[in-house]
Amino acid sequence: MPFAHSLRVRYAECDPQGVVFNAHYLAYLDTSITELWREAFGGYQAMIDRGIDMVVIESTLRFHQPAHFDELITLEVGITRLGNTSISSAHRITRDAELVLEASLHHVLVDLQTRAKASIPDWIRSGLAPWTEPDQAS
Amino acid sequence: MPFAHSLRVRYAECDPQGVVFNAHYLAYLDTSITELWREAFGGYQAMIDRGIDMVVIESTLRFHQPAHFDELITLEVGITRLGNTSISSAHRITRDAELVLEASLHHVLVDLQTRAKASIPDWIRSGLAPWTEPDQAS
Amino acid sequence: MPFAHSLRVRYAECDPQGVVFNAHYLAYLDTSITELWREAFGGYQAMIDRGIDMVVIESTLRFHQPAHFDELITLEVGITRLGNTSISSAHRITRDAELVLEASLHHVLVDLQTRAKASIPDWIRSGLAPWTEPDQAS
Amino acid sequence: MPFAHSLRVRYAECDPQGVVFNAHYLAYLDTSITELWREAFGGYQAMIDRGIDMVVIESTLRFHQPAHFDELITLEVGITRLGNTSISSAHRITRDAELVLEASLHHVLVDLQTRAKASIPDWIRSGLAPWTEPDQAS
Repeated sequence: MPFAHSLRVRYAECDPQGVVFNAHYLAYLDTSITELWREAFGGYQAMIDRGIDMVVIESTLRFHQPAHFDELITLEVGITRLGNTSISSAHRITRDAELVLEASLHHVLVDLQTRAKASIPDWIRSGLAPWTEPDQAS
Repeated sequence: MPFAHSLRVRYAECDPQGVVFNAHYLAYLDTSITELWREAFGGYQAMIDRGIDMVVIESTLRFHQPAHFDELITLEVGITRLGNTSISSAHRITRDAELVLEASLHHVLVDLQTRAKASIPDWIRSGLAPWTEPDQAS
Repeated sequence: MPFAHSLRVRYAECDPQGVVFNAHYLAYLDTSITELWREAFGGYQAMIDRGIDMVVIESTLRFHQPAHFDELITLEVGITRLGNTSISSAHRITRDAELVLEASLHHVLVDLQTRAKASIPDWIRSGLAPWTEPDQAS
Repeated sequence: MPFAHSLRVRYAECDPQGVVFNAHYLAYLDTSITELWREAFGGYQAMIDRGIDMVVIESTLRFHQPAHFDELITLEVGITRLGNTSISSAHRITRDAELVLEASLHHVLVDLQTRAKASIPDWIRSGLAPWTEPDQAS
């Protein structure tokens, strides 16, 4: 089941073509992770407080329809895979009924101090469980 | 053969982890396209002036080592495929001998006015020819 | 009387000091103008649709306490002066009871086509009237 | 005497009006400080390595002519005042002979660890001396 939140496109995020500049979508996806983390186990800071950080290792974005200034867009995110140290997520951005973007992100957890890969702790695994879905692309 | 240019990481592009925030790499790749376009046929504006615009339809980024504030990074770009209306490019970002990022972008050309897909004109095709290379990932 | 809205600080907006990078506050203020415009006369696009655009000509920002990732901040804006073609606004950003930033912006209205200065139309003047306050700095 | 460097406007920095979005100028000014610091005493990191950090406390920007995508702009910066803990700088951005922006920034030095205000050390004071000029606005 995907987790959803929404945001409104800012003027500063739009380019001379009048649409959201492509790199901002990747930044939007980060807000989806932030909001899902809050819902799942109290937020990114709760993770940091327990000595775990995360880094993105791969992202794939497919751009469908552009979003424009002041539009309210919906961001959906679901967890498609929990490995030993890695978390894969699938994302969709829509505006009304239209598909704006599909994306997948792959993160790995790291120890906050050593930056070495860290196994996913149980409280992250169980917190994310309700939002886990099979990867429909695979 | 790849085309290369370099840029220096700005403080504003780095996040609380002390490294370039992931979305900025996607913006960096846009500067590679801009610089290659300049070299190949006089620049993005020259393309616009002839009634052609372009939009990105897909991007894949693999993050290897993080880049940090004030580091000078090298951006390489090569054209991996010229379709009828689409242009695929492969990108590498390095810092000294280290690999920071690998990426691929897929653009389509569109008519500046109608936004319908546009065939790649000869002057773009020939301008990009020196920078065309087989896609080593395929 | 000020108009208020709120937003949550994004990770991408924070720098290696762990606080919002200064330039993002200026972008935040633009969202205050956007939201006030929506409340006052239907939004920025409604202004564009009637042939009026606006440009910022001066900004002054005084930074008090830094805002951090994931904090919910409140943005207040009031109109301090409506000239013939210019609009002055005063801004405050707070987090809980703490003052994060004070700022003033000066915009001028321009004709959408000619980009020449344009007199403030009555529907903008009356729309902004409820949010007009004397400039307490003068 | 001002210190000067130049940069090329990126597409991502331009908005639907086709010009650099106002907040990006404030980010540009940060690159002027970075480059001046490098010239004056080896760079921002050299300052950090000696236990000193800095924060901006006030900025004033006056926008004259807009800069556009792909334009090469020149950024000038001079130090207008060195207080006990504060550094004031005056900035100009030009494109060819045209004035794009004038600005002033006020920073204070802080202890890297305690974040308390820190006196300007002699090596910063002497390093910045060649770039110090009277504030022509006062």
